[in-house]
Amino acid sequence: MPAQNPVFIPGPTNMPDSIRKACDVATIDHRSPAFAKMLRPAIAGVQRVLKMETGEVFLLPATGTGGWETAITNTLNAGDRVLAARFGMFSHRWIDMCQRHGLTVEILETPWGEGAPLARIEAALKADSTHKIKAVLATHNETATGVKSDIAGLRKALDAAGHPALLMVDGVSSIASMPFEFTAWGVDIAVAGSQKGFMLPAGLAIVGMSPKALTAMENADLPRTYFDLRDQQKGYAAGAYPYTPPVGLINGLAHAITLLEDEGIEAVFARHHRLAEGVRRAVAAWGLTLCATSPDLYSDTVTAVVAPEGFDGTAVVQLAAEKYGVAFGVGLGEVAGKVFRIGHLGMLSDVMMLSGLATAEMVMADLGWPITLGSGVAAAQDYYRTTA
Amino acid sequence: MPAQNPVFIPGPTNMPDSIRKACDVATIDHRSPAFAKMLRPAIAGVQRVLKMETGEVFLLPATGTGGWETAITNTLNAGDRVLAARFGMFSHRWIDMCQRHGLTVEILETPWGEGAPLARIEAALKADSTHKIKAVLATHNETATGVKSDIAGLRKALDAAGHPALLMVDGVSSIASMPFEFTAWGVDIAVAGSQKGFMLPAGLAIVGMSPKALTAMENADLPRTYFDLRDQQKGYAAGAYPYTPPVGLINGLAHAITLLEDEGIEAVFARHHRLAEGVRRAVAAWGLTLCATSPDLYSDTVTAVVAPEGFDGTAVVQLAAEKYGVAFGVGLGEVAGKVFRIGHLGMLSDVMMLSGLATAEMVMADLGWPITLGSGVAAAQDYYRTTA
Amino acid sequence: MPAQNPVFIPGPTNMPDSIRKACDVATIDHRSPAFAKMLRPAIAGVQRVLKMETGEVFLLPATGTGGWETAITNTLNAGDRVLAARFGMFSHRWIDMCQRHGLTVEILETPWGEGAPLARIEAALKADSTHKIKAVLATHNETATGVKSDIAGLRKALDAAGHPALLMVDGVSSIASMPFEFTAWGVDIAVAGSQKGFMLPAGLAIVGMSPKALTAMENADLPRTYFDLRDQQKGYAAGAYPYTPPVGLINGLAHAITLLEDEGIEAVFARHHRLAEGVRRAVAAWGLTLCATSPDLYSDTVTAVVAPEGFDGTAVVQLAAEKYGVAFGVGLGEVAGKVFRIGHLGMLSDVMMLSGLATAEMVMADLGWPITLGSGVAAAQDYYRTTA
Amino acid sequence: MPAQNPVFIPGPTNMPDSIRKACDVATIDHRSPAFAKMLRPAIAGVQRVLKMETGEVFLLPATGTGGWETAITNTLNAGDRVLAARFGMFSHRWIDMCQRHGLTVEILETPWGEGAPLARIEAALKADSTHKIKAVLATHNETATGVKSDIAGLRKALDAAGHPALLMVDGVSSIASMPFEFTAWGVDIAVAGSQKGFMLPAGLAIVGMSPKALTAMENADLPRTYFDLRDQQKGYAAGAYPYTPPVGLINGLAHAITLLEDEGIEAVFARHHRLAEGVRRAVAAWGLTLCATSPDLYSDTVTAVVAPEGFDGTAVVQLAAEKYGVAFGVGLGEVAGKVFRIGHLGMLSDVMMLSGLATAEMVMADLGWPITLGSGVAAAQDYYRTTA
Repeated sequence: MPAQNPVFIPGPTNMPDSIRKACDVATIDHRSPAFAKMLRPAIAGVQRVLKMETGEVFLLPATGTGGWETAITNTLNAGDRVLAARFGMFSHRWIDMCQRHGLTVEILETPWGEGAPLARIEAALKADSTHKIKAVLATHNETATGVKSDIAGLRKALDAAGHPALLMVDGVSSIASMPFEFTAWGVDIAVAGSQKGFMLPAGLAIVGMSPKALTAMENADLPRTYFDLRDQQKGYAAGAYPYTPPVGLINGLAHAITLLEDEGIEAVFARHHRLAEGVRRAVAAWGLTLCATSPDLYSDTVTAVVAPEGFDGTAVVQLAAEKYGVAFGVGLGEVAGKVFRIGHLGMLSDVMMLSGLATAEMVMADLGWPITLGSGVAAAQDYYRTTA
Repeated sequence: MPAQNPVFIPGPTNMPDSIRKACDVATIDHRSPAFAKMLRPAIAGVQRVLKMETGEVFLLPATGTGGWETAITNTLNAGDRVLAARFGMFSHRWIDMCQRHGLTVEILETPWGEGAPLARIEAALKADSTHKIKAVLATHNETATGVKSDIAGLRKALDAAGHPALLMVDGVSSIASMPFEFTAWGVDIAVAGSQKGFMLPAGLAIVGMSPKALTAMENADLPRTYFDLRDQQKGYAAGAYPYTPPVGLINGLAHAITLLEDEGIEAVFARHHRLAEGVRRAVAAWGLTLCATSPDLYSDTVTAVVAPEGFDGTAVVQLAAEKYGVAFGVGLGEVAGKVFRIGHLGMLSDVMMLSGLATAEMVMADLGWPITLGSGVAAAQDYYRTTA
Repeated sequence: MPAQNPVFIPGPTNMPDSIRKACDVATIDHRSPAFAKMLRPAIAGVQRVLKMETGEVFLLPATGTGGWETAITNTLNAGDRVLAARFGMFSHRWIDMCQRHGLTVEILETPWGEGAPLARIEAALKADSTHKIKAVLATHNETATGVKSDIAGLRKALDAAGHPALLMVDGVSSIASMPFEFTAWGVDIAVAGSQKGFMLPAGLAIVGMSPKALTAMENADLPRTYFDLRDQQKGYAAGAYPYTPPVGLINGLAHAITLLEDEGIEAVFARHHRLAEGVRRAVAAWGLTLCATSPDLYSDTVTAVVAPEGFDGTAVVQLAAEKYGVAFGVGLGEVAGKVFRIGHLGMLSDVMMLSGLATAEMVMADLGWPITLGSGVAAAQDYYRTTA
Repeated sequence: MPAQNPVFIPGPTNMPDSIRKACDVATIDHRSPAFAKMLRPAIAGVQRVLKMETGEVFLLPATGTGGWETAITNTLNAGDRVLAARFGMFSHRWIDMCQRHGLTVEILETPWGEGAPLARIEAALKADSTHKIKAVLATHNETATGVKSDIAGLRKALDAAGHPALLMVDGVSSIASMPFEFTAWGVDIAVAGSQKGFMLPAGLAIVGMSPKALTAMENADLPRTYFDLRDQQKGYAAGAYPYTPPVGLINGLAHAITLLEDEGIEAVFARHHRLAEGVRRAVAAWGLTLCATSPDLYSDTVTAVVAPEGFDGTAVVQLAAEKYGVAFGVGLGEVAGKVFRIGHLGMLSDVMMLSGLATAEMVMADLGWPITLGSGVAAAQDYYRTTA
């Protein structure tokens, strides 16, 4: 029997039935007003979710990686310098992309498990008195380590340095699940993906651009066509696309926003926090620790659990899949084998979360980890039932 | 956010995606060969699931209740006497139906929590030396109490009494989940429903008839049209129906049987037993007891848990629904308030089951029941992980 | 490649995607308030579609045949006399059902192609001075011949005779597609099915009962359980069912009514009339005639086209299916072979209808019928484009 | 009522139900073996459809435009010269993309309505004795004009010139609908999209690369990350992706290939030819002409019909959408207003096609075009029925 257990990877997330149905649309003419009726509410909805007061939102038929490429190729010039901290696989990959596109990246190497080093970033910006740095890249939620960074703090650092660099934020695994304030935080470019907080299949890169980023777009000379936002702008003005749009995903996105707003976006954040806190209490009950080094860094969408000395985090993920049909996330890069990750974002309830924790316990017991069956579940139950 | 937690009612069950899709078919001409291609494998598949060597299977667009009515109206005559034990809500309802249709029911009142009283049945049959009793009704799995009865034993009782009555079995909540042997057990009529072990939506009554039952059909004078199997027989011979068939459900049934047989029907039974045993270990760990009075009676599809003195089983069901969005079953009839029921049939995994047990624990704790959070989960985990 | 051509059978109809999705619901607890929230609008919506001011609506998990059985078994007593005209296969079948249930049917044999003979019915009622006739059965739209009957006229006949018989109407292939006025016409029982004007899969019998019919229900002694409306009444009062309800179909029905009312129920009738009129103009352009003997009898949901002398209507249906993958309806009973039927109800547009007419033309040409390719299409096009 | 008429745009196409269902998959772990089981048959299937004996296939989460970008950025270097003919909107766009990415395009301006000018291409290649031209771009089926080009002829031109340039073919609107022979024709890069012959939603760019193209990939210096095939290669080797793959589309693609091969790929081509020929006969019966200037150029997936002097092709498309709910394609670029386009690819039957032709006739009549209702339909019927 196909198990249909929930997944506990940090995205793609479990999907509501109604979103799956909204994505499954019969073919329409994507140059017709029927399509414009799907597109406009999707864009307006993303603006509300981002808390974007001015700026524009673009929906590219791509993944979050395409969103990163959209961000840099539309605003930067060959040889430009960007500043970025590296503290996980996803911050690493964005840096690597910049280098492939001919940018010079000033990399602040940071221990995996920590977040964006605000003081060092501020220092680097202050040291750049000629404003060679054109952009600061930030990974809001480092999916590899379960660490969130302080984006409002980054804005303060930029302001303290009086530095005009664009603030580009990878919010792929945070947006629509954790608080995000595009305008209040002074974000210039925010990148999200359909398959995380928006609970859709992968296939849409969601990019928000501030007026300042839109201005930068006009002169940017990095080559681009597929991701060229000037073509998107022209298309959207006519309710259309420069090429064939992913109609189903856009219809699904509009519906996802309805679901998020029906629940209440703050309630969505609170639910994610509550789910995450239950997981963290379970981890504590198991006597284990998190990869994230301090509570202010704890992600509410993914938790990286450190394997005890002598045990392999990857084995947990493999055995959970093979023996119980449940998906967790392996450690990546520097923390490969050292952690396993529990995703807790998107369509998820406390009840579903408990089955994930119960499964993790069985697997750890199977592998001889020194944990007590039911202990983490009980800690989470206790928290969930008193906060429901 | 819609929770999409699994349900833990004793049917309808959680449904595999692929079954839902198989049920969702565009309109076809139900008088065309395309329909016959759906119907024939569905019927043949049910025969295999029933372990029926001779006899016929009928698929009525109705629920299990319609299946009962099909059984009695097609084989009995007004004023006929039938023998039935009453030990739960579903055995009661079939008896009530017989009375409404003008049959005389010899009722063996039996404590709820026990199964069919073989010795008393045998005695009653032996006492009926003139063979006034035309049918013995048996509820294979009494969904109200979580009790299974010994159908092979009933056949032995009939044979011991040398009695020609038809053996009619309500297998609605057992067939396709628990061992059932139509031919080996000498069953004359078996009634199943689409929404239990077959994991389909409600809407199909599935009725198996032995050659002897088919013969009885020819002279039965209880009025019937919708459920008249003679019309069905004529229809099936032409690959069609006497009225508009529920095409989607029939296509879905054929697919469900493919899923059951891909898993292996014995493996399906073993999975149900394993899931049920984990639930029973959890109940024991909670310090609670079952409604079923002895292990040989334990149902593998539903467990009725007795509320401790002073507590209300119905409250568990209500709070689970309201606070956690999880469905359990209330006690019915004589055991209303005295038990709550955990369904564990259909598309279900150990992982899903654990979320049900974890939820039940939270609810019981919320209601002040004297149980320890995590205790039942741990007992089930221990069993599941060593038997996976 | 699966053709996915529209069907042109007189039901089940082509289904809107959104209805199929509304029918495909994950399992919920059918005893929970969530189910009541589906049931109540479905029932209220049917009342509006029926134009029922007083009375009750019941939704049985069955087909239209089950609706007929519900009508008679809930209101009549063994041996009761009913009056019915027979002028097609469906009026025949209801008569046959009455006889199987022990009723005495006074049959007014009427040529197939004509409708209910009002004068003869009035005469029969007047002749029944002792009011032995307990019900008059009427087939509003005889699907076998494409003939509608005058239900308002039947009420006048009853009133003219001062006769208290119940007026029972089979509206399976008319309700929700053609004007129907439950209260204004003095209908006592109306029977509909999910798979026609409501555009759902087969599986729901929809029965409307007047206060007078509800009163008759209390003393009716025909045996019934599955179709016993007293159990339904008790269930609905609690937002539930006496057995497991077909949740998906009920949710789908509520949605179908939303679609009908979004279009406007009078607009739905007008669309059906317009589609039908285009078909009739095509038939005229082919030089063929209808089975219905006069324009006041023309059905707006199905057209039975008479085969020219020497040609076989059934061959049209068979060749259309085999060669072009298009479903039409064969002639049934007395008109078997003499006609073929074009269904034009449910989800259907002028554009879809034209493909049906074009296909019929190809088939008739293939079979050597004396028609001109494109002639019927052109006549329908001319009508459709000037009335769009 | 939502009309659910077929669409007659040149892609996205009408989609089979089973493909829509195959695309709608619950979330799985895209790093698990379950995903590899979807990916590998999809890739192998595309290879068969392309008739590719050596080389590799890549599936990018993008549209055909992304496929073009993949082709050029993975094989060319900044400043490289490419040769391309411009004879429609899609050949124009690819040229424009090359220019945006810093390539020098030698453009052979060609009248819209004609195909790739083989003799001029051969001459240009021969004139390039130092082999500055690194690639020849060809639009196999120019969707804007309904013109196919002779790709085998292009290979002959390259060979006749002894020129080593890569042969890059845009087969977006031809592949899987019209004959295509990757290896036999000596194609180096073929680009297709999910939403045309593969009958999927938009969202997958499908790129086939010859060994020679794969070799070029190693040294190409155009910046790329999202479309970098080296990352894809590494991913596929592990049954995975460099980023989150569009699981549903890949599963759907594997299923689409099953449908194509169940029909038989040659039968698929024959069906498209037959549908197209019926359309062309209808156009002739209307007294109208095609944009394609000679029969050897006629596309089997889209027909561009030239509006008579004084009439506007775009008006046909607008009125068809507004009045009849049917989608055709407008003229683009140089032929805007001068033509309207009828798409006839993907899931389409003769029966569906006839409704498109009948609609076009109504619209043209509504707009006062000098055509006779039913004339084109009759011509197509006559052809379809004698070739079915």
